[in-house]
Amino acid sequence: MRVEVIAVGTELLLGQITDTNSSWIGEQLAMEGFNSFFQTKVGDNLNRLSDTIRLALERSDAVICCGGLGPTQDDLTRAAIASVMGVPLESDEEMEERIIAMFAGSSRRMSMNNLQQAEKPAGTEFIAEMPGTAPGLLCPLDWPDPDSAGEPLPKVIYAVPGVPWEMKEMMSGTVLADLRKRAGLDSVIRSRTLRTWGESESGLAEMLAERIDALDESGNPTLAFLASGLEGLKVRITAKAESASEADVILDREEDLLRGILGPLVFGVDDETMESSVLAMLRERSMTLAVAESLTGGMVGSRICDVAGASDVFLGGVISYATQVKYDVLGVSPGPVVTSEAALEMARGVRTLMGTDVGIAATGVAGPDAQENLPVGTVCLAVSIGDAGGGVEDSIEVRLPGRRQQVREFTVISLLGLLRRRLSAID
Amino acid sequence: MRVEVIAVGTELLLGQITDTNSSWIGEQLAMEGFNSFFQTKVGDNLNRLSDTIRLALERSDAVICCGGLGPTQDDLTRAAIASVMGVPLESDEEMEERIIAMFAGSSRRMSMNNLQQAEKPAGTEFIAEMPGTAPGLLCPLDWPDPDSAGEPLPKVIYAVPGVPWEMKEMMSGTVLADLRKRAGLDSVIRSRTLRTWGESESGLAEMLAERIDALDESGNPTLAFLASGLEGLKVRITAKAESASEADVILDREEDLLRGILGPLVFGVDDETMESSVLAMLRERSMTLAVAESLTGGMVGSRICDVAGASDVFLGGVISYATQVKYDVLGVSPGPVVTSEAALEMARGVRTLMGTDVGIAATGVAGPDAQENLPVGTVCLAVSIGDAGGGVEDSIEVRLPGRRQQVREFTVISLLGLLRRRLSAID
Repeated sequence: MRVEVIAVGTELLLGQITDTNSSWIGEQLAMEGFNSFFQTKVGDNLNRLSDTIRLALERSDAVICCGGLGPTQDDLTRAAIASVMGVPLESDEEMEERIIAMFAGSSRRMSMNNLQQAEKPAGTEFIAEMPGTAPGLLCPLDWPDPDSAGEPLPKVIYAVPGVPWEMKEMMSGTVLADLRKRAGLDSVIRSRTLRTWGESESGLAEMLAERIDALDESGNPTLAFLASGLEGLKVRITAKAESASEADVILDREEDLLRGILGPLVFGVDDETMESSVLAMLRERSMTLAVAESLTGGMVGSRICDVAGASDVFLGGVISYATQVKYDVLGVSPGPVVTSEAALEMARGVRTLMGTDVGIAATGVAGPDAQENLPVGTVCLAVSIGDAGGGVEDSIEVRLPGRRQQVREFTVISLLGLLRRRLSAID
Repeated sequence: MRVEVIAVGTELLLGQITDTNSSWIGEQLAMEGFNSFFQTKVGDNLNRLSDTIRLALERSDAVICCGGLGPTQDDLTRAAIASVMGVPLESDEEMEERIIAMFAGSSRRMSMNNLQQAEKPAGTEFIAEMPGTAPGLLCPLDWPDPDSAGEPLPKVIYAVPGVPWEMKEMMSGTVLADLRKRAGLDSVIRSRTLRTWGESESGLAEMLAERIDALDESGNPTLAFLASGLEGLKVRITAKAESASEADVILDREEDLLRGILGPLVFGVDDETMESSVLAMLRERSMTLAVAESLTGGMVGSRICDVAGASDVFLGGVISYATQVKYDVLGVSPGPVVTSEAALEMARGVRTLMGTDVGIAATGVAGPDAQENLPVGTVCLAVSIGDAGGGVEDSIEVRLPGRRQQVREFTVISLLGLLRRRLSAID
């Protein structure tokens, strides 16, 4: 079953509002196993909206229109659906009374415009849920399908408001269930995302090439890659099955298989970030952490503190942006400060200053200009773990791609990734 | 001139990523006076992508495809454009060399897949800007227009990457200018944004009510408000004129008028952030800065270092997340640490430790839980300026709205806003 989404509103085209509704709807459709091949934004214009609905009906079995159900002259979704169906708009007395009663019970004044919302295309229904003042529409129709020599096929148009929580209530309450009923559906789609760090997107694709070829044959599950900056490189597994538990079995099996190929590159699953993964590892080992950062200027600490409950592990840090601060506060030896040695001295220095088990440090060239004759992207990372963790120390120099902001973001995840690898070796 | 936007990527349809690119592009097009009546999301499927481009060419004069230019088998925008144009894909030797050189200069390994990115439809050009590893495309073509009895009309397809900063650089550098040239455009829309901090959105609207009424009559320029978290509350002025210089005159006049009403609430214009404004003020006064932060965990420092060239003013800071670090490293007196006194001691302590002219500090309750019996959102901010700046000290307690992330973001701009007010009083 193909379901198309149309987001209605000139403000969406002008970029005044970002259309998050169709992303949310798209995710729900995918999870239910419906295909959604097109999502269109169109403005508040009767002809263009009607044309867009017609095109969607030609390509898909069901169309969800989101927005354009308000009380103003710009709200044209009701009229466009009536025009596509070739039926008049009729006012519904019961709905009129309901709207009048709703305003009577609130402090807001009703204008005559609000009664426009009681209109619906003849022969259609209102959606049962009505959390706001805008009724939704459920409009079954017969549509001459081009694939069946013009023979009419049963299709359906839904209209839900653009206000996200109103839309979600109607989608969850009526629309998805109605779609399932129409599809006679008994299959479920579920997905799981493995987050990785340490290989490029094409490198991952090469490592997984054989597996991807095998999956292309079977078609279930499927894999997709997604580069997400300091969220890591994601590998998403999507499985289709007759029940949620069967889909989970496929996901478990595939996750095991991919972990076998990718090994320690995988640092987390789904919403698990690099920093939450590292914090959990430190917590398990009863170790505390301090950070010394130069080019990131506080970004490492800030990301760590994004995780609620970080305070039992993360004690603090030093932002040693100026060279003199590296010497004076962290005890770095005089000399160049973008070196593995300087990074290691920073890590030791902050560990001593803050009295933690672990110190980590990053120093490097974020740009825009080169520094100490090193090109932009040259970054030195270090980990210093005290005696409680076996006295492990490590320091590396890497070359990160991109410009100032990217270099800084990649520094954050690279530094935490280095700590993660060192911690893995400690029980 | 009609310009249509196509966002390419199955992950967009599945709701794994929200398509913010076409919103941004839509806004730029609107500012330039181009109509954008449709924006479509389509998945990584050659036929559907080609069909979508064809449909867009039928409805519009120009098509901007965003995404699908990466190195994997899922990246089909190059092939789809070639198919629509009816020309083969050709590999460009110069681009191949450029890609090989780019990888050689970084620590990343190039896979053979990356060379796919050197391909372009025969007879088209690469976009000059190439901030990442994906080249963009500029593809002029003749298209049989239905409105001119099939007579071919000159149209154009652009392809830009889905990575937002790469896309923006190509749009601003090449695409918008090329569109203007093709349109022979003679009316110009320009806008300017005043950034404010210190009043709520409804407070601003009240201050500006009279001016807004007057502008509603004339219709040019127009004003719009936009709340943007730690970017401040924005007031956007949009002016239309026959030339850029005339539009600038309207903007200048309106900016003067609004500054007269809003006074010191305005901290910056357009891309000028609170941190760049504060850095500039410190630089003018030859003063250096250090930061002590608790609940923000490094976010204040990180935002300051987002500004290239911060290093002549910003020396560093201490992230005193744990209470003990506030006592030991910053010299805060034992006792509660979410008080104005503790904030002031933190500011003094970091100023002394780093040897700067100015120290600023934030301590507070970000949540999710209350702390020291204070509710989430309780934040203490302090500024300590040394003798060179007249020995000014100030410390306040504020109650910020929202949850963990919002509280932390508002803390950053509130702290810098406090420093800004104190610096204004120093010549």
